[in-house]
Amino acid sequence: MTKTNFSFKLILGLLVMFSCQTTSIEKKSNIEIKDPLPSWNDGSSKSSIINFVQSSTDSLSSTFVPVEDRIAVFDNDGTLWSEQPMYFQLAFALDQIAKLAPEHPEWYNTEPFKSVLNNDLIAVMKQGEGALLQIIMASHGGMTAGDFEGRVKEWMRTAKHPKFNRPYTDLVFQPMLEVLAYLRENEFKTFIVSGGGIGFMRPVTNQLYGIPAEQVVGSMMKVEYDQDEKIINRYPELSFIDDKSGKPVGIYNFIGKKPIAAFGNSDGDLQMLEWTSTKPNSFMMYVHHTDDKREWAYDSLSSIGKLKEGLRVAGKLGWTVADMKRDWKVVYPFELED
Amino acid sequence: MTKTNFSFKLILGLLVMFSCQTTSIEKKSNIEIKDPLPSWNDGSSKSSIINFVQSSTDSLSSTFVPVEDRIAVFDNDGTLWSEQPMYFQLAFALDQIAKLAPEHPEWYNTEPFKSVLNNDLIAVMKQGEGALLQIIMASHGGMTAGDFEGRVKEWMRTAKHPKFNRPYTDLVFQPMLEVLAYLRENEFKTFIVSGGGIGFMRPVTNQLYGIPAEQVVGSMMKVEYDQDEKIINRYPELSFIDDKSGKPVGIYNFIGKKPIAAFGNSDGDLQMLEWTSTKPNSFMMYVHHTDDKREWAYDSLSSIGKLKEGLRVAGKLGWTVADMKRDWKVVYPFELED
Repeated sequence: MTKTNFSFKLILGLLVMFSCQTTSIEKKSNIEIKDPLPSWNDGSSKSSIINFVQSSTDSLSSTFVPVEDRIAVFDNDGTLWSEQPMYFQLAFALDQIAKLAPEHPEWYNTEPFKSVLNNDLIAVMKQGEGALLQIIMASHGGMTAGDFEGRVKEWMRTAKHPKFNRPYTDLVFQPMLEVLAYLRENEFKTFIVSGGGIGFMRPVTNQLYGIPAEQVVGSMMKVEYDQDEKIINRYPELSFIDDKSGKPVGIYNFIGKKPIAAFGNSDGDLQMLEWTSTKPNSFMMYVHHTDDKREWAYDSLSSIGKLKEGLRVAGKLGWTVADMKRDWKVVYPFELED
Repeated sequence: MTKTNFSFKLILGLLVMFSCQTTSIEKKSNIEIKDPLPSWNDGSSKSSIINFVQSSTDSLSSTFVPVEDRIAVFDNDGTLWSEQPMYFQLAFALDQIAKLAPEHPEWYNTEPFKSVLNNDLIAVMKQGEGALLQIIMASHGGMTAGDFEGRVKEWMRTAKHPKFNRPYTDLVFQPMLEVLAYLRENEFKTFIVSGGGIGFMRPVTNQLYGIPAEQVVGSMMKVEYDQDEKIINRYPELSFIDDKSGKPVGIYNFIGKKPIAAFGNSDGDLQMLEWTSTKPNSFMMYVHHTDDKREWAYDSLSSIGKLKEGLRVAGKLGWTVADMKRDWKVVYPFELED
């Protein structure tokens, strides 16, 4: 993993800006104040994040949030790392079909596996969502939990993203890493709440984001405990889909508290943000993919990470919409390397 | 409910076996060493806990456990608080039927509700497990998550245990509170993994045990998110039973890591302890209810908290069995009050 090189600068402009916006923050003028979000350009997105953190941690303010309620939830695909040209988990699934094929000789003559093994992605896609689901199930189930975890770790270590020719794990968003760290410094507990598979994310979230496995909520496969072997087996069957209305359900079941802050990038996150917005003084943010040079630009017309209704609601309710091109000085940590 | 007739024996053989097991702790002679477990009598149970914590946190030892893997799981009923003469959650359910009855006039003429409303517990019990399940479903579902949480909190604040005439929340085990605190001081993350309802426990676990809602795993009702009202609704249907083989499944799904320490008191905890035992240098402990004066004495013949197979396996594999009568100086915190 690339060592991120955090160059923290004193941003004088920010200080000036803050002095007009809020009343009671950082009055100790002799202390050097570090910019908590150095990869964010000055502007309304950055200041809305800082204002939220300051107002929710100011014990003299009516907007103060006790530490135990400082729950911040983050979507993963498109919010903490990229999701183009396909969800990374789908790339993993396709790669796994090739690795698992020797144990499944019938795949060489059975669709959609045959097309996957022939590297004919177009033929796979033509077979529709059912085919993709078959590929996910076959690559994620029918093995022990330990075996699956090993396969995920190996893939994360070795597979390379086609556009950047770098490990997929390099494609996390530097500005969002700063948001995560900033929240945790202020005693927020950070959770991932993703439509992605919980077993696919957990092996790497601590290393990538500083989020431990037990703070990851995601879609789940059916698993069972084998009493004789004393192992967990994974079955090729979905047991929970952590997307859209599933996200508030996942949060209620796994965390048991309504978040005070929620971050997403697609219409699949809208219910999570809306539910969070019913908590007083909460903070909602969408990441808007607007940068076709450094990352990708897509929203209402994209089949991956579609963002249409979410933008409408965000505009109406005044949620923060981070414009990747405008707001982010860098996208990926490796851009900071000299 | 059939009052089980607890005939409980001190198992002498076990005592003899344990006395040979551990050697010594607390070697730093010049420093004033606080006893981390003051409510535990000296003996093999206490020393086994201390030995485990010391060996797993000694960075020079081969048994060292990195902080991120210091996951300790605790059953609740019978392990952290009492569970007699009936699971506290069942007492809550029965009380709720009376509170909810005005909204359900048909209950006055429908079993098992009619018998509950007539305070005829014997008639309720005669109707068997199906009747109890009906009572649990009717008292735990068919309302919003917020409404249910309010009802639980109100009950915890006002209901009194019939034997002690004290709030149920007074009946937590002081020695186990000390184990929880001791583990957390040593950077373990403590979780509840209980057959009890997750929504019944979460409103009080932080206050009672210092365990936040997001570290509670339990049985679950079906819930759905209402997009229009932006609320979570609870339905009278079980969606997950966190007992027996369900406990390793619950841990895998919610925590995503195999624990290094597991504490239980019944055969329903056996799979959790067995799965934990497959991790090198792990610690497993049963609480054995042997004190019919201060608490209750029951094990293999009890319908509540039955402990038979678990004791056999614990003996065979050398797990710690805390004998409540022998090992605990006090049972409840209120015994420490002057």
